[in-house]
Amino acid sequence: MNDLIDTLRRLVGPAHVLTDGDLTAWEQDWRKRSRGKALAVVRPASTAEVAAVVKACAAAGTSIVPQGGNTGLAVGSIPDDSGTQIVLSLARMSAVRAIDEANLTLTVEAGCVLQTLQETAEKAGFLFPLSLAAEGSCTIGGNLGTNAGGTQVLRYGNTRELCLGLEVVTPQGEVWDGLSGLRKDNTGYDLRDLFIGSEGTLGVITAATLKLYPQPAATLTAWAAVPSLAQAVALLGLAQRQLGAGLTGFEVMGQFALSLVGKHFSQLRVPFLGQADAPYCVLLENSDSESEQHARERFEALLESAFEAGHVIDAVVAENLTQAHQLWHVRESIPLAQAEEGLNIKHDISIPVSRIPAFCAETDALLAREIPGVRLVNFGHLGDGNLHYNVQAPASGDARTFLREQEDRVNTLVYDQVRAFNGSISAEHGIGSLKLDKLPAYKSPVALQLMRAIKQALDPQNLMNPGRVVQAP
Amino acid sequence: MNDLIDTLRRLVGPAHVLTDGDLTAWEQDWRKRSRGKALAVVRPASTAEVAAVVKACAAAGTSIVPQGGNTGLAVGSIPDDSGTQIVLSLARMSAVRAIDEANLTLTVEAGCVLQTLQETAEKAGFLFPLSLAAEGSCTIGGNLGTNAGGTQVLRYGNTRELCLGLEVVTPQGEVWDGLSGLRKDNTGYDLRDLFIGSEGTLGVITAATLKLYPQPAATLTAWAAVPSLAQAVALLGLAQRQLGAGLTGFEVMGQFALSLVGKHFSQLRVPFLGQADAPYCVLLENSDSESEQHARERFEALLESAFEAGHVIDAVVAENLTQAHQLWHVRESIPLAQAEEGLNIKHDISIPVSRIPAFCAETDALLAREIPGVRLVNFGHLGDGNLHYNVQAPASGDARTFLREQEDRVNTLVYDQVRAFNGSISAEHGIGSLKLDKLPAYKSPVALQLMRAIKQALDPQNLMNPGRVVQAP
Repeated sequence: MNDLIDTLRRLVGPAHVLTDGDLTAWEQDWRKRSRGKALAVVRPASTAEVAAVVKACAAAGTSIVPQGGNTGLAVGSIPDDSGTQIVLSLARMSAVRAIDEANLTLTVEAGCVLQTLQETAEKAGFLFPLSLAAEGSCTIGGNLGTNAGGTQVLRYGNTRELCLGLEVVTPQGEVWDGLSGLRKDNTGYDLRDLFIGSEGTLGVITAATLKLYPQPAATLTAWAAVPSLAQAVALLGLAQRQLGAGLTGFEVMGQFALSLVGKHFSQLRVPFLGQADAPYCVLLENSDSESEQHARERFEALLESAFEAGHVIDAVVAENLTQAHQLWHVRESIPLAQAEEGLNIKHDISIPVSRIPAFCAETDALLAREIPGVRLVNFGHLGDGNLHYNVQAPASGDARTFLREQEDRVNTLVYDQVRAFNGSISAEHGIGSLKLDKLPAYKSPVALQLMRAIKQALDPQNLMNPGRVVQAP
Repeated sequence: MNDLIDTLRRLVGPAHVLTDGDLTAWEQDWRKRSRGKALAVVRPASTAEVAAVVKACAAAGTSIVPQGGNTGLAVGSIPDDSGTQIVLSLARMSAVRAIDEANLTLTVEAGCVLQTLQETAEKAGFLFPLSLAAEGSCTIGGNLGTNAGGTQVLRYGNTRELCLGLEVVTPQGEVWDGLSGLRKDNTGYDLRDLFIGSEGTLGVITAATLKLYPQPAATLTAWAAVPSLAQAVALLGLAQRQLGAGLTGFEVMGQFALSLVGKHFSQLRVPFLGQADAPYCVLLENSDSESEQHARERFEALLESAFEAGHVIDAVVAENLTQAHQLWHVRESIPLAQAEEGLNIKHDISIPVSRIPAFCAETDALLAREIPGVRLVNFGHLGDGNLHYNVQAPASGDARTFLREQEDRVNTLVYDQVRAFNGSISAEHGIGSLKLDKLPAYKSPVALQLMRAIKQALDPQNLMNPGRVVQAP
């Protein structure tokens, strides 16, 4: 092992092989649920250095955990507790390599922080639409590795849909230069999409070519109280018909989730809070390529038809950017408010949009029956069928005890329902090690067999992020 | 072999195992460049039958060529001339299994003809935007297998982007039910995109869940004469900024390509034909979610700015649907007009949009220098960077002799240029067997190695469409 450390120091410089001191930032997961122990944290500065590090580790039989901003929610980017794994941090590879305005593309290294990437695009007059809570810390390499979602998926897709090409270091330390700026290329298997979402188990993403979009001329936000989830789904359909691709956001929030924001962040104004005839509120975003006036007219026409059809009880359209930010801030404060309220069990599920009302009705009732007093913090990206269907401990009693005693049971109840409704137990967070043991029960055996065959073919030594996504053979 | 035929007859019924008579429709490729000989054409009626057929063939060591409408342009769906391969026709599996309006999805079997699919969507009030010349004959299974492109890619993406889930029979005859209607699902490797575009070499796609879109309120078409390719690219950028996602088509056509339409289809009116200061014309399509009036205003505003900026010399906007169809008909008549003019060498290349003007200037000059008298029929989907950069034999001399003597040289000249401009030698048609021997020179060795490893892992017997996409180990 000391030989390997010496080799790594020679390859990336002694200052960039961390073995002593406080390595918490690299060894502990974002939600502080898990902590590992690394043999070393290695911070290469170039693709060539990444390749050399991977080759050295492969020769030594040492496994590698690639890491970006370490903000993942599925425990996929920290080492295990054996003290034998290398954390390969891409943080020093953060350059924007090129921007091609006429091609609407940008090529960037894996360690670039998402917010920096957004700002770089904006400065050049373009939009890079990936947007999520951790954007100030997460890196594009991590976003690609986990196929991150966020709030603009409805219009622009997941990270997968925003990527045209990749540069990847294979488990053998070879560099695949797939940094294509092409929107059409049918010359063989789709390696790009195989690496995207593979959570570092098939290779190390070192750079990517990403799509840019023209900035919209105006973006407006509205907040509507709806009489039921079914009406929220009907509103979504109407908005898709009337606004077309202008509809860039469609979030749903249950009243209990909103009440926690009202309770713990009393400085925030939560529209229609506690309105009994409106069990849910919806946040809509309309991005217009024409003008603010046009956006406002379209939005008002939509809301008018929605009132008439009974989809909406009450609604406000933000008058200006400040008000729009305030509305989004309420939506984004739900996870924090939930944490303030105490420990809880998080789910990141997706269901076909059409089946969400029935799923929630059934599952709400099931949980209430099985676990009296349970409180549901239900919110999410309804436009994508993605709910954060979270379960808060009963108000009475100790939350820690509740979690210890009930977490597995709650997960099984919810995930069995997800399966019954043809849904997914991980819509946007990935598998990591957190959900690895759940997969066999909720994924087709044929799919698992295909995944294992691919892992075995590309990483026969099982050195790339072992124990994540696919079970060891 | 007779044992296998007997088994197949038992599995799918004797009427659906064709061994005698005229099998040209299954054995000859669309462009009539190649003809094979099948052991049998097998036409299963269900996924279970496909699985049983594949199992029987695997047990017999007999290789399988999956076939949809057999309209591919890369010789990927006909058998070789050995008389030992099975053609597995999906034509009888053409059912629309389900339509989910609130989820904007449709589930359909592989053998459904694309036009039937488009009409099914339209009847339900939705748009399925995949559109290409062979839509009356090609099947969605073939579109998925080859990741077909077409004229709406600019807005809606390739077939890949239109698919949410697949049902696939593996080379071992197992059924993977991945028919998901989810827009977000991060539970493991992206098997869907691995099968899409793999041209039947990794398994048989038997069904798919596809995205639907709301129908636009109005679709308008314009035709503009542009002073250069550089100005066409500038016009594209302006249209993307002003129309946003409303820009659903952006085709470019060189004057020589248009002159062939004028010559061979004199009943068609070709706008700005032969206008010397306009070496190229552009066809634009604007789809509007609001109204025809709004679409027209936006289009006129765009063309006005384009005139002022010098991107456009002259332009017409179709007054009605008939005129719009006439304009599209001119664009779509180019390949036929080219065939009327005589034999030619076709290319289906992509280049980053920003580099297309330089690519064409250099490559036009190179070909004119190297092969005096050569005539370039250049047209394509400029919005996607996809050109059909075709080469017509010189007007004088025998075209057949020209092709025999010059085709390889022309291909090498063009493809070497494509490589120098970071392009692709197959943008939308695939590799098939037509371009298999070209790949090693134009694709990274690491990518080819990864492709071979995946093929070997999923199809170790090399029974699925062998000799296509990846070279035999």
